[in-house]
Amino acid sequence: MNDRTQLLGISNAIVDILAHVDDGFLEAIGAPPGSMTLIDREQAKEIYSRMGPATEMSGGSVANTVAGFANLGGDAAYIGHVRDDQLGEIFNHDMRSLGVNIRLEPAPHGAPTARSHILITDDGQRTMQTYLGSCTELATADITDETVRAPKGILIEGYVYDIAEGPALSRQAMDIAKANGTIVALSLSDSLCVDRHRAAFLDAVRDGVQIVVADEDEINALLETDSFDATLEALKDFDNLFVMTRSEKGSVIVHRDAHVVQPATPVEKVVDTTGAGDAYCAGFLYGWANDWSLAESARLGTHCATQVIQQVGARIEPGLLESYKSSP
Amino acid sequence: MNDRTQLLGISNAIVDILAHVDDGFLEAIGAPPGSMTLIDREQAKEIYSRMGPATEMSGGSVANTVAGFANLGGDAAYIGHVRDDQLGEIFNHDMRSLGVNIRLEPAPHGAPTARSHILITDDGQRTMQTYLGSCTELATADITDETVRAPKGILIEGYVYDIAEGPALSRQAMDIAKANGTIVALSLSDSLCVDRHRAAFLDAVRDGVQIVVADEDEINALLETDSFDATLEALKDFDNLFVMTRSEKGSVIVHRDAHVVQPATPVEKVVDTTGAGDAYCAGFLYGWANDWSLAESARLGTHCATQVIQQVGARIEPGLLESYKSSP
Repeated sequence: MNDRTQLLGISNAIVDILAHVDDGFLEAIGAPPGSMTLIDREQAKEIYSRMGPATEMSGGSVANTVAGFANLGGDAAYIGHVRDDQLGEIFNHDMRSLGVNIRLEPAPHGAPTARSHILITDDGQRTMQTYLGSCTELATADITDETVRAPKGILIEGYVYDIAEGPALSRQAMDIAKANGTIVALSLSDSLCVDRHRAAFLDAVRDGVQIVVADEDEINALLETDSFDATLEALKDFDNLFVMTRSEKGSVIVHRDAHVVQPATPVEKVVDTTGAGDAYCAGFLYGWANDWSLAESARLGTHCATQVIQQVGARIEPGLLESYKSSP
Repeated sequence: MNDRTQLLGISNAIVDILAHVDDGFLEAIGAPPGSMTLIDREQAKEIYSRMGPATEMSGGSVANTVAGFANLGGDAAYIGHVRDDQLGEIFNHDMRSLGVNIRLEPAPHGAPTARSHILITDDGQRTMQTYLGSCTELATADITDETVRAPKGILIEGYVYDIAEGPALSRQAMDIAKANGTIVALSLSDSLCVDRHRAAFLDAVRDGVQIVVADEDEINALLETDSFDATLEALKDFDNLFVMTRSEKGSVIVHRDAHVVQPATPVEKVVDTTGAGDAYCAGFLYGWANDWSLAESARLGTHCATQVIQQVGARIEPGLLESYKSSP
């Protein structure tokens, strides 16, 4: 099948609802600071009713990456499940306005579009209470030759494994990819998500996934290692390309015993680290999709992450590629 | 009727949809930079489809004032018309989370909740394309002894006169206020709105309204004057209290030939002037509702406006009253 798409994301389509809270709020709802907790509809209602005034914007980890990839000028597509409600309309609008090809129509029934209540404490830390809603209805039936086609790469979100049919639909995407010569990347999402799905992730990494995108904690969780050296040693056993972000330590691209090390760019003031990894991933995959070297791809990823941590909000702004090309 | 409410707002309940655009965008849709244009549902769909990724937050001029008033600790209530859709839920949530008593239930049918597409150009200017949707269904039937009660003050938004039953429902609110000894304030909204409804506004100001809240342009439009001196001269003929904001020139409270002058507070950097007048109004009315002097009320109004122009977003943050009390 002919397909000019460079990157297809498959992930949870979520609208973020952001509000400032005090530490007592997190205690009252029993949420560890910085955690991401899945909640049900009743809990979502309860938390929303207790939250202060909020701001809404499209979110979701891999959705942020796909939006950033399109914003850089890449040819992107997206599979995620939303309802035909106002939040679903907002989510699809924000993707489409960047040129992302939305492959699933909003569902005319079922649970409402997913929302993540993002509780920001005074120290800038974000604690997420996520109601998956319509996302949970993503099914293997949605992953077809027609919706997947033959992109250069597919990026699957680890959180998709939290959905009932998540492991099966991910496998289906890998099978379609294999038949078409499409490369599959897996984002590990967060270390608790890795704990929930370690066996399934390892199966996928051993068979079906070629690129693993993750921060150091997530890779440590996957390999059950506890030091950078131990992780590098363990990675020698894998054929995959590992794209590992390490916060202020920069990033490392690992392929067996070969490493590309990219330092972080020092910034005067970190405003908000949310989405730094997703933005890095957007930049890296843009380079990769355009046949740049790993080092150049890592450099663009760093450039994207550097911008995102200096702003409020996880999605990268237009013009990033231009500012990258003119940077020293 | 016993009512502890200090301020009841009656206005258009709107969710803002904010996005950055380039100047060509405004030209393409034929919108003068800085203008507020009322659009219909089809135009709203068209503009939204052309807009880039956006952020959503509750807005509306007098709604911002009521939210700010409640945030300062005032006892506030609100009458505005939303649908029982997700944007309506967001609007009511944001008001209720500040303790505002919402007097109308969301409508189970009719037009969707209003949204204002706020197009931000590189110079920071905001151009608004507003689809009034559910707001237009606010009716005299919604303005009753039960919904209005007997607050200390009612603040009516000039934009309400753009609604079919707006003039009639405003008059009804004034009649209920008169019967209860409630003071009525009218916000003039914007100078084009004054042009649209000058005769009706003057009628209201002559009979029914005791306080007029407006910027200098709006008062000039109302009185058809073209200089500050001419305006002050013309105001001598009115019994109303005029609360006039003048941007960097500060504000003036005028009652016949008596003036209270409050200079603006210099700030290092103006980030976004949106909502400055609404925030000033919140502070001023908070002082007024608590029997502060006009000078002290104007000083709190200025403090609120000073905060709002140094942030993105029109609504004031909690803790403003504390920072005011500790300011020199």
